[in-house]
Amino acid sequence: MGVPDRAQAEQLDRDDALARWRDAFVIDRPERLYLDGNSLGRLPRATVARLRQVVEEEWGGGLVGSWNRWIDWARQGGDLLSTAVVGGAAGEAVIADSTTVNLYKALVAALDARPGRRAVVTDDANFPSDRYVVQGLADSRGLDVRWLPPDPTVDDVGAAVDTDVALVTLSHVAFTSGALLDLAGITRVAHAAGALVVWDLSHSAGVVPVDLSAAEVDLAVGCTYKYLNGGPGSPAFAYVGSHLVDELRQPIWGWFGRRDQFEMGARYDAAPGIDRWLVGTPPVLALAAAIEGIGVTASAGVGPIRSKSVRLVALLEELADAWLAPLGFEQRTPRGAPARGSHLALAHPEAWRLCRVLNEQYDVVADFRPPDVVRLGLAPLYTRFVDVWDAAERIRAAAEARAWERVPHDRPRVT
Amino acid sequence: MGVPDRAQAEQLDRDDALARWRDAFVIDRPERLYLDGNSLGRLPRATVARLRQVVEEEWGGGLVGSWNRWIDWARQGGDLLSTAVVGGAAGEAVIADSTTVNLYKALVAALDARPGRRAVVTDDANFPSDRYVVQGLADSRGLDVRWLPPDPTVDDVGAAVDTDVALVTLSHVAFTSGALLDLAGITRVAHAAGALVVWDLSHSAGVVPVDLSAAEVDLAVGCTYKYLNGGPGSPAFAYVGSHLVDELRQPIWGWFGRRDQFEMGARYDAAPGIDRWLVGTPPVLALAAAIEGIGVTASAGVGPIRSKSVRLVALLEELADAWLAPLGFEQRTPRGAPARGSHLALAHPEAWRLCRVLNEQYDVVADFRPPDVVRLGLAPLYTRFVDVWDAAERIRAAAEARAWERVPHDRPRVT
Repeated sequence: MGVPDRAQAEQLDRDDALARWRDAFVIDRPERLYLDGNSLGRLPRATVARLRQVVEEEWGGGLVGSWNRWIDWARQGGDLLSTAVVGGAAGEAVIADSTTVNLYKALVAALDARPGRRAVVTDDANFPSDRYVVQGLADSRGLDVRWLPPDPTVDDVGAAVDTDVALVTLSHVAFTSGALLDLAGITRVAHAAGALVVWDLSHSAGVVPVDLSAAEVDLAVGCTYKYLNGGPGSPAFAYVGSHLVDELRQPIWGWFGRRDQFEMGARYDAAPGIDRWLVGTPPVLALAAAIEGIGVTASAGVGPIRSKSVRLVALLEELADAWLAPLGFEQRTPRGAPARGSHLALAHPEAWRLCRVLNEQYDVVADFRPPDVVRLGLAPLYTRFVDVWDAAERIRAAAEARAWERVPHDRPRVT
Repeated sequence: MGVPDRAQAEQLDRDDALARWRDAFVIDRPERLYLDGNSLGRLPRATVARLRQVVEEEWGGGLVGSWNRWIDWARQGGDLLSTAVVGGAAGEAVIADSTTVNLYKALVAALDARPGRRAVVTDDANFPSDRYVVQGLADSRGLDVRWLPPDPTVDDVGAAVDTDVALVTLSHVAFTSGALLDLAGITRVAHAAGALVVWDLSHSAGVVPVDLSAAEVDLAVGCTYKYLNGGPGSPAFAYVGSHLVDELRQPIWGWFGRRDQFEMGARYDAAPGIDRWLVGTPPVLALAAAIEGIGVTASAGVGPIRSKSVRLVALLEELADAWLAPLGFEQRTPRGAPARGSHLALAHPEAWRLCRVLNEQYDVVADFRPPDVVRLGLAPLYTRFVDVWDAAERIRAAAEARAWERVPHDRPRVT
């Protein structure tokens, strides 16, 4: 068995049960190989029509009367997300605010539920916002942060938790390495020490099966604009396990979180259930797009998506081993499907300039992640096996030509 | 001089310098009299085109590369809002999050800047979210809330502040009564006691001139979906005076608030200036609509808008005095333009059912506000003097016919 040739990739596409889902997305230049769906997912065709309807008919035509339908969307979207994507029940999630604001709410609620415990466990390779929210709370509340090394195991977490730890907060799939953490195992050791867990599912929701109920997860957050294709900055989700939903104190009290909101009562009275995780008026246009995107994933099914993801990543890995490793690329993503999500991180000394030249001259969109990673995200709903093959081939060509020497070192603000 | 007749209203429209701005909005059924632009502003025509472009070209076509333009919008929109709408400077505002989340950030920052002071001053008729955020912080931090009666004067606030008061937070225009508070005078007496001020401009931004710089206001927030026509739940604004912008600690630390965001550095390092008031990834579609809406107001000018607003409200008041007072309506809005914003609150024992029957059978959209107020909002960019005349006439007809007797008492969740 040699390295797969392009005909084999084409055969994989012909056999792909998810192939038809590519047509559900706007793909205006198929020759552009878009391996950044884990930064911003593509635009579903249905979203185009839906947004025109929401803007022109519901806002423009229906005006304030449309709130009679909009008022339920944060919950309805949360129910869809919970039941179809992250293995929760109805009434355990809402779509609201940004991932960072939801993390803040979740961490404060968890800290307040463990009074007297002064430590938080997280890892040093967590996404920047996740680290910063923890640091902000540590700074204001005088907490001790126990920083684990990247991609912690159950044993790493087990060794870090004790009766002083209020909560463990980690990302299910690491945003740089792509490592898939043992969500159930880590939740178990955290609980054994009496700590709560707050999972960030931004890089797993919609592409890796998640079963929050089975794992008895306390709180989770995540964004809807990556594998869920909800649109740039689409509102995030907040999940609270039913065992805690009526117990935790959500700290930002707003009118959308109050029982009988339009009674406009004098004093705050937390709404029953998950509604209290709502705060202010949601951005309806962005919320509509988020729900539409979640709906595409719900229809295709996370099981089939994961199955294709595993094979896409394996193909890319095989090609990278054969073509890119000899050119100085080092794989930072763990080996083996059970240990990783849906992207491959390849380290290279010229990663920044390589990403830039790939985008500008090879029509390959990949993400640079500091300090030296080329991140290749594979979104199974619209990424084909030939896209993977062609991308590996173009990256090889760029590296062989030392194409990065053609572009300057200076970085734009957005990478 | 009798009560103005319809011909006089038509003449006012012919003489109206802002009349042409009505064409900037989608108005699909002119026979529907929409007096609820202070709940949800109308859809600007430019927004329809702008959103198609953002969705289909920038997201669908440009994909993640469009972040090179989107990344600046929160600040650019903030600069426009600050300089053209609320009398601030560039670099003093951002468009981000919901009004409630911004209030939370502002109140926590203000409290932290006045350590040792344990009291907050606000008023009992403030908007629900404003009251709830205060209550939530009072609950978690053990603060004393000094509740003023509705529509407090400078003297009311002066009597309530002392060296134990950390901050005064009020709405510039009261959401029910429409009373316009003395922003500069109240800010002055708060400062004299060493307290900070946090103003909610939701019902004044875009329709009442605001001069935050001249008044030396510390912090302000407000929504963009009322008189600013930014769309349902469009992201709010947060203003921080330049005298405090590098001093206050914004409490929710996220990646958009960090210096050199895409460096993704290990530790949070607050961005210089107003950028630290950003938290997570903004909802780009909703943000685009917000900026487009603010742009319409900026082009028309708040001065001319206020001038027309004063005359619209005066006309409605004159008709209400003549036609509605004899039918049992009681005006809750203060008399005289300097004392009020751009809506009129009329109390009536059957306010709820009257609003409903007005909407369903008289094609007049007004807001019910508990317990007994019919709120009539006049948005000068698209509300005509004949709309005011016709609405008063229809309300008179409904009241004379006791039309509320045709509808049940039960209330929907959204009012």
